[in-house]
Amino acid sequence: MSRSSGPLLAPKPAVVLLSGGLDSATVLAIVRAGGFAAYALSIDYGQRHRAELDAAARVAQAIGVSEHRVVTVDVGQFGGSALTDASIAVPIDGVKPGIPVTYVPARNTLMLSLALGWAEVLGANDIFIGVNAIDYSGYPDCRPEYIAAFEALANLATRAGVEGRALHVRAPIVQLDKAQIIELGTRLGVDYSATVSCYQADGQGRACARCDACRLRRDGFVRAGLPDPTVYA
Amino acid sequence: MSRSSGPLLAPKPAVVLLSGGLDSATVLAIVRAGGFAAYALSIDYGQRHRAELDAAARVAQAIGVSEHRVVTVDVGQFGGSALTDASIAVPIDGVKPGIPVTYVPARNTLMLSLALGWAEVLGANDIFIGVNAIDYSGYPDCRPEYIAAFEALANLATRAGVEGRALHVRAPIVQLDKAQIIELGTRLGVDYSATVSCYQADGQGRACARCDACRLRRDGFVRAGLPDPTVYA
Repeated sequence: MSRSSGPLLAPKPAVVLLSGGLDSATVLAIVRAGGFAAYALSIDYGQRHRAELDAAARVAQAIGVSEHRVVTVDVGQFGGSALTDASIAVPIDGVKPGIPVTYVPARNTLMLSLALGWAEVLGANDIFIGVNAIDYSGYPDCRPEYIAAFEALANLATRAGVEGRALHVRAPIVQLDKAQIIELGTRLGVDYSATVSCYQADGQGRACARCDACRLRRDGFVRAGLPDPTVYA
Repeated sequence: MSRSSGPLLAPKPAVVLLSGGLDSATVLAIVRAGGFAAYALSIDYGQRHRAELDAAARVAQAIGVSEHRVVTVDVGQFGGSALTDASIAVPIDGVKPGIPVTYVPARNTLMLSLALGWAEVLGANDIFIGVNAIDYSGYPDCRPEYIAAFEALANLATRAGVEGRALHVRAPIVQLDKAQIIELGTRLGVDYSATVSCYQADGQGRACARCDACRLRRDGFVRAGLPDPTVYA
């Protein structure tokens, strides 16, 4: 008997990391289309683009979740990233090779560890994250081998692993380019006007059009041949 | 030329997870004895035994650190553990087989991910954690294979890994029993009266004598043949 197809069974819970950006909104739509009950998790890590968290709430509401939680972690105190340290400028002169100053040390490991903790409490076997290894910004923790290593860790770290339940860390858009992500999300009904990708969006969520995140996003809409609903400052 | 032995070189930085308990105090003493500059990290995760954090500050002061930071993360909102959820009682009827209700979901993964982030910013290649697989409470994330998996993850997750610098996650007391830990720490000059292990210590840090942590600790002093400086309520 399949555990997932019976119409009388409650949908399986899945924890979804939801930043408020384009990628994680698409992942949330994939999770809902897959029939999961979505438990969306956003992390307030002191990011300068606070509008992202407002966007996460809008996206959760629009796509539909069973619950949306925000966990606050003050890693901004460590510094070391343009996204958490106001003294380091967000680069606006184009995407360069290598790891950029917008890289937040160990951010995905931190976010996945929080997702893992909530998944354990919920009894969820699936964690979704919108990392992307194609049109990405050179962050080491966006690669498929990183996700596989976290999944291995998760199964050793937890009650689920000890009890023989397999935990899955799923990165469904990791091998899609930005245009493909936008095409997929559009087919799934995602309203990208609710999302904020810009690293230095203003208080109203308006994008700068010049940071790496803005450039990758805008190019994606162009290449997908779809109208860009982003509100620029 | 050795990078670690030159007297003119600054000591290498290491991040040390410091809970305020007996095990992590011993690890901090090992780190200092090893010639590292210690960057102690404590996590306020909503634990009911707040006296632990006061103890961490005392221990950091007594043993000597370059810096001591406390990061607050509100994972208590997830519930699921007697250590963060006041509605779940801390067991006081002896250590049982299996994973106890004091297990905090994904706690060590969360703490190591925060240590990893700070290590990246500091340029530290070494992270120390006082997990113990012998006299422990049945937590899955205290086993050597878990630590090895986190080290593998760390090297994929970070700038250090990408740049070919190896990160090490070190658990120097993982294979020692509680008596051996106490003997080692005593030789290194640890004043265990500053530490708090009890899961439900009172506001003055006095121990209950009945929870798993108290039982393991007290038995350790007895087996080590050393006086137990713990203040019991």
